[in-house]
Amino acid sequence: MLNKFPDDSVGLVEPQAIKFTEALPLACGRTLDQYTLMVETYGKLNTDRSNAILICHALSGHHHAAGYYEGDNKPGWWDSAIGPGKAVDTNKFFIVSLNNLGGCHGSSGPNQTDPQTGKPYGPDFPLMTVKDWVTSQARLADHLGINQWSAVIGGSLGGMQAMQWAITYPERLRHCMVIAAAPKLSAQNIAFNEVARQAISKDPHFYSGRYYDHNAVPKTGLMLARMVGHITYLSDDGMREKFGREMSAGKLMFDFNPQFEVESYLQYQGERFSTAFDANTYLLMTKALDYFDPAADFNHDLAKALEHVSAKFMLIAFTTDWRFSPERSREILDALVEAKKEVSYTEVDSPQGHDAFLIPIPRYMEIFNAYMSRIAADIPTETNTAGQEGYHAR
Amino acid sequence: MLNKFPDDSVGLVEPQAIKFTEALPLACGRTLDQYTLMVETYGKLNTDRSNAILICHALSGHHHAAGYYEGDNKPGWWDSAIGPGKAVDTNKFFIVSLNNLGGCHGSSGPNQTDPQTGKPYGPDFPLMTVKDWVTSQARLADHLGINQWSAVIGGSLGGMQAMQWAITYPERLRHCMVIAAAPKLSAQNIAFNEVARQAISKDPHFYSGRYYDHNAVPKTGLMLARMVGHITYLSDDGMREKFGREMSAGKLMFDFNPQFEVESYLQYQGERFSTAFDANTYLLMTKALDYFDPAADFNHDLAKALEHVSAKFMLIAFTTDWRFSPERSREILDALVEAKKEVSYTEVDSPQGHDAFLIPIPRYMEIFNAYMSRIAADIPTETNTAGQEGYHAR
Repeated sequence: MLNKFPDDSVGLVEPQAIKFTEALPLACGRTLDQYTLMVETYGKLNTDRSNAILICHALSGHHHAAGYYEGDNKPGWWDSAIGPGKAVDTNKFFIVSLNNLGGCHGSSGPNQTDPQTGKPYGPDFPLMTVKDWVTSQARLADHLGINQWSAVIGGSLGGMQAMQWAITYPERLRHCMVIAAAPKLSAQNIAFNEVARQAISKDPHFYSGRYYDHNAVPKTGLMLARMVGHITYLSDDGMREKFGREMSAGKLMFDFNPQFEVESYLQYQGERFSTAFDANTYLLMTKALDYFDPAADFNHDLAKALEHVSAKFMLIAFTTDWRFSPERSREILDALVEAKKEVSYTEVDSPQGHDAFLIPIPRYMEIFNAYMSRIAADIPTETNTAGQEGYHAR
Repeated sequence: MLNKFPDDSVGLVEPQAIKFTEALPLACGRTLDQYTLMVETYGKLNTDRSNAILICHALSGHHHAAGYYEGDNKPGWWDSAIGPGKAVDTNKFFIVSLNNLGGCHGSSGPNQTDPQTGKPYGPDFPLMTVKDWVTSQARLADHLGINQWSAVIGGSLGGMQAMQWAITYPERLRHCMVIAAAPKLSAQNIAFNEVARQAISKDPHFYSGRYYDHNAVPKTGLMLARMVGHITYLSDDGMREKFGREMSAGKLMFDFNPQFEVESYLQYQGERFSTAFDANTYLLMTKALDYFDPAADFNHDLAKALEHVSAKFMLIAFTTDWRFSPERSREILDALVEAKKEVSYTEVDSPQGHDAFLIPIPRYMEIFNAYMSRIAADIPTETNTAGQEGYHAR
């Protein structure tokens, strides 16, 4: 445990559970009559409520993006980018971060109690789409009194939510920052997700998703899912640099214990994840990824889908990302250009593959910072006195 | 069943089991006192026994490379390349194809009876290396009276065996054809193999490799292993062309049944494989891949490892192969050039990824044919009357 937080940390944070009672109709045809969103906020909302930023999380993310919990010495998942003086500067912005519906960190989801049965939802929790999430996030904005976000920002699946915001609620965000994302998954992306789903659903401890009732956890399935996922988050080059063919024993052992460093690493990552994440949520999140395809509603014409957006876009991609390669970000770029929208695009040179979006690579942070200054400058001037006497959501 | 075989087929073939009783010392430190190799041959050995070609198989391959079994309507796995008038021309060459030790198609391996116990070897069958295989193949050559191969040819793991032949027995082959291979696995390659191994060994029906005793098969593990493997055999582009985001139902179904075509395809491939292949063999084959690293004995200097080879090399790589990319073949090329060896290298443009090496792509077959003519021309002239009255191994 840390006695003192770093100077550029938002410090101690606490999540809040916000309950919504207005029914939420979903893409699948079902409705959530009531639901809870776990939310964290950092910084202060200004008087005009015009300096708010929404952070959307990726596949295994949650609301705890920055700062520390009491007793913890590990900060939130994007602490490198959020804090006083950091890219997403809490001295300038009021930042909202939530756990999406279907998540496993306190928002309504498979591992939470279904009020209608008093038991965990499990596989009865409806499958969600990126659009559903954006609708629920708009309700959250309403609840917080935020009519228009300064920016919606996300990486990977988070970037897809940012993009969907710009399409669904063009007037409700001034900037849209899409990092290491794609306009839709490729067959290969879907294939990797399907391996993960098969690993989980065929685990004998999955019990058709009702493992809570059996006091069981499909650990092996989750471990395998994470191992496959992890390979796609790293680059071939990055793995070569990080692990090469280094052997723990220094020589071939001719058994099936981990032999090469990369094997131990993956097993460790997989095992840690298997006790920390919910299997039904993992299935749901991968489906939301597979289903994301905003152009599908517009005759598969992405430029058409983006025709009415009014947000300015910032796209960032990483050279060795092969999960969502720069080529995929350029598809979004090309569509925005075709739709005659304002867009900036940067490709950051990095060996870290898809994972790069979470890593404070100096060049990435420079570009992130520069664009955030522009976003700050776009806060309507009469209210550009962030946090003086603003609403503090905690 | 076919009533008549195609004109360019070797026709009906039969495998033979060849028993070896001289003990075989292995890299792992153990010894196989006796062993059996399942072998097929095509074409006729000439009087001087100088027109022989060895075909080495890849991860899930076996001895049945060409022609048809009685009652079968599917030919061997490389029938597109082996036959009268084909690249590996049975009118010119005597072709030998075997199931490697540790395989599951009749050669001594985990699913065969251990003569010492009368039960299947299972996990007690020793782990094999590419070097061990090459030693066993040299014994096979001795048995067939073949002192020097016209060529040793293989794709993927088969190409690694060809390369090892040139290093271990420089005088015993005139040509070495290495297709879609690499001088050693990368950390990413090993990582994918480890996911496959974890999937198999953590399957509750694996019983520590003694599933034969339980009348069980670790089907789920094998299915997952094959699904992951299959993704790495295809290219991202190839999958996009083949499956795109096509949906079997034409719309999102919001359940976990296969939704996209690529999901059904992978499940089908995985399930078919899970009843056709042996789990212990799969583990052993992936380990042989991981362990292959001929430069390791030469201070990690591949040129040094190749210093004494006398075979002429032909290397072929495929543009969209990301399992063993052209870059990996060029590592072998560069080392051969540095070692001042005779080498040809071709990169074939193909969307099929690693799988391309098994597909009769016109340009690939042209190049293959041209090089095989050169190999045929290198058969010592006094014996260049293939098969007139030669030894016919069947």
